[in-house]
Amino acid sequence: MPETKLPTRADDFSEWYNQVVLRADLADYAPVRGCMIVKPYGWALWENIQASLDRRFKATGHVNAAFPLLIPKSFIDRESKHVEGFAPELAVVTHGGGEELEEPLVVRPTSETVIGHAYAKWIKSYRDLPVLINQWCSVVRWEMRTRLFLRTLEFWWQEGHTAHATFDEAEAETRQMLNIYADFAMNDAAIPVIAGRKSEAERFPGADQTYSIEAMMGDRKALQSATSHNLGQNFAKGFDIKYLDKNNAFQYCWTTSWGLSTRFIGAIIMAHGDDQGLILPPRLAPYQLVIVPIFKNDAERGPVMETVERLRAQLTDFRVKVDNRDDVSPGFKFNDWELRGVPLRLEVGPKDVAKGSVMLARRDKPGKEGKAVASQDNLASALSEVFEEIQASLFDRALSFRKAHTHDPRDYAEFRQVVEDGWAFSWWCGDAECEIQIKDDTKATTRCIPLEQPGGEGVCIHCGKPAKEKAIFAKAY
Amino acid sequence: MPETKLPTRADDFSEWYNQVVLRADLADYAPVRGCMIVKPYGWALWENIQASLDRRFKATGHVNAAFPLLIPKSFIDRESKHVEGFAPELAVVTHGGGEELEEPLVVRPTSETVIGHAYAKWIKSYRDLPVLINQWCSVVRWEMRTRLFLRTLEFWWQEGHTAHATFDEAEAETRQMLNIYADFAMNDAAIPVIAGRKSEAERFPGADQTYSIEAMMGDRKALQSATSHNLGQNFAKGFDIKYLDKNNAFQYCWTTSWGLSTRFIGAIIMAHGDDQGLILPPRLAPYQLVIVPIFKNDAERGPVMETVERLRAQLTDFRVKVDNRDDVSPGFKFNDWELRGVPLRLEVGPKDVAKGSVMLARRDKPGKEGKAVASQDNLASALSEVFEEIQASLFDRALSFRKAHTHDPRDYAEFRQVVEDGWAFSWWCGDAECEIQIKDDTKATTRCIPLEQPGGEGVCIHCGKPAKEKAIFAKAY
Repeated sequence: MPETKLPTRADDFSEWYNQVVLRADLADYAPVRGCMIVKPYGWALWENIQASLDRRFKATGHVNAAFPLLIPKSFIDRESKHVEGFAPELAVVTHGGGEELEEPLVVRPTSETVIGHAYAKWIKSYRDLPVLINQWCSVVRWEMRTRLFLRTLEFWWQEGHTAHATFDEAEAETRQMLNIYADFAMNDAAIPVIAGRKSEAERFPGADQTYSIEAMMGDRKALQSATSHNLGQNFAKGFDIKYLDKNNAFQYCWTTSWGLSTRFIGAIIMAHGDDQGLILPPRLAPYQLVIVPIFKNDAERGPVMETVERLRAQLTDFRVKVDNRDDVSPGFKFNDWELRGVPLRLEVGPKDVAKGSVMLARRDKPGKEGKAVASQDNLASALSEVFEEIQASLFDRALSFRKAHTHDPRDYAEFRQVVEDGWAFSWWCGDAECEIQIKDDTKATTRCIPLEQPGGEGVCIHCGKPAKEKAIFAKAY
Repeated sequence: MPETKLPTRADDFSEWYNQVVLRADLADYAPVRGCMIVKPYGWALWENIQASLDRRFKATGHVNAAFPLLIPKSFIDRESKHVEGFAPELAVVTHGGGEELEEPLVVRPTSETVIGHAYAKWIKSYRDLPVLINQWCSVVRWEMRTRLFLRTLEFWWQEGHTAHATFDEAEAETRQMLNIYADFAMNDAAIPVIAGRKSEAERFPGADQTYSIEAMMGDRKALQSATSHNLGQNFAKGFDIKYLDKNNAFQYCWTTSWGLSTRFIGAIIMAHGDDQGLILPPRLAPYQLVIVPIFKNDAERGPVMETVERLRAQLTDFRVKVDNRDDVSPGFKFNDWELRGVPLRLEVGPKDVAKGSVMLARRDKPGKEGKAVASQDNLASALSEVFEEIQASLFDRALSFRKAHTHDPRDYAEFRQVVEDGWAFSWWCGDAECEIQIKDDTKATTRCIPLEQPGGEGVCIHCGKPAKEKAIFAKAY
């Protein structure tokens, strides 16, 4: 509950973010450094994200399962790049049941290894392929600098792990899941994202190819919002995942993995929020609508509450909160639900009761512009339309913002300027050394090489060598 | 896939259980001793259990959240009985990010402590109460003798944690959740359970009162299937969970916790299974119906598959599997899906195509008794009825079985005999020493003191002292 005003985004974006997370009751700090509690309001948002993704996963033939939290430490060592990437971040269990363990166990930082071990046991022949499994769980990575949702020691996610007979099938799966993430982000979270390929430096440790969706936040930095990895045969060889093909010969499988985490909640906050707080897209909001009854005395209370309850009963297709607290004023409630990002407010006062009307107030358009009187009749269909409008308007606004802050600099001098404002979409030679020099110089990194390319060729924005692709460069979370 | 026959339950119940779990593809062993992988078929069953419970939790005003996996070890020590109960079972993280930690962390064995710590921070006044939060997660307890689903180092569960202003409210919550578990077990899992109070020896470490639901398994042992604890003010005092009452005085809260775990899958297997394998109740079965197409040649295949697809399209209200594998025979498929417990099989052959009929085969009634011809018209409503019949018949069978093996022995000599056959429902003095003597002598323990009592008074079945209540005594999982 806000005792003081939020900092503005322009003044201190980082502090605005922290305060929105805490005041909107999305999350809290846990007693262990860097760990987080996802509070009921934040978890309800996550549950909607989960439902939205899970539906897409199942529609494309995936099933869920649960693999163990504890992994023998030696498993991590079996894939050389994987161990390099994850060894410094491990939480290690050395004691169990009062005794020191013979082999230390790690709390999973990701599950390629333990799932690879299972797949090696389960997969015998080409008839067993593809294996298309996802799990919803939490993982632990010992991060040093943490921020709620964006980077925490423990975070919640889904991790899909699939095994295929051919490279082509694995690549098609990797791209399919990338498209599913992009579809989810754009249609349900109203966040325009750019789908692309990661540079070698930005790849998942152990992947042949990593794809990601990248979104622009309100401070114009980029946030990697989900990733999809083509793991080639790296884990298949590390864990001996083989199948007997139609000619009775053993072949290594081709595997993929893909994930989206509670970090995405950070993306929603920073893509849509304004100086009043959160703005949640109607398709994911825990409450799509808050009804605030307004009355001055007991004589007014009866008819108002009767109308409120009648409306609530009509609106069972929506996620509705009736705020009937009697210890705070309507104005307090308005501010509170604005801070918490509920897409639409519905006010019912004595005049509305008399006229058969309600007052609607859109969260995405503050002030008079977002206000409208609606009839109590056919309210459900009117609301459906309003929610579609809000969903579209959030997307359009984020897209315009991204376009306004995405630049195509003519030379490196201009490049250095534009990455202070937002993103640069520039020809890049693809060389790792060149990438490091740009990063050291500007703090901007390659976010991705978008799948959609202009065609043709150019010269690298930094080194001037020939370049076949354009990349997004930006400062990033 | 069964290469050899299952052992019969009469011959070796324990081995029958293990083989059903593995062959029905519910779970597998993980690389770490005592840990389990819940395979997609087992997880789909768990997802249905989750949905079924979650609906009930939310309908009674509970919300979900997520608390951290890692807990400072010192937290466990703050409630004296809690530490006694859980200290020997802890998995301890001593290293993170390559360094030894200043304070070791434990992987949560249950979350009363870390949630208590959060509630102390969140709860300020009587207006904040009650707090009604649940979480779905996994927990780790270092068990020595493990069995898939029944007792594993890591298991999945939900744990509800609530805080209230008064003892009465906490007690009402504890009993409400017990009733919800009983309702779920009986109506959705078709398992008759007895709801009762635990003896002091069987209480949760740190609870003032533990209630449970107890079910009889196919080997006539008891399985504790869910528990609900009134924690009194024990954790409130240990973690300083206080609120300001209406008179501006600080009061300690009254808290509860309640849980149901993947152990319940073990209960379903052992309550309903037969010598052919699993039998799943229709309300929870991952597939309620398997359609097996039957044809001898390509000429028959076309019309049969066309009918199968038409029926599948009609049956979207059900969870349907079409088994169109072409490398195994229909007979093999029948056995396979019987082993995996699908409640109903629907066969479609060329004659069915010609007659507009299908053959139904109920899993709960093997052979001719369970077979019936049904019309392809109005199949959905016919199936709804059949599923209701199967659901009721599974419950009735389990209830008859329990009644047949629950005894009211006249004296202790008879008591010793009947607990070899099943359960004894006997007057008990309530004395802990008496309970230990019975256990040492017979291996039977008090499962619960049922809430439904015959009334009146009696004498203890063991020591002959006056007794006010009857208890269930049984060997237990």
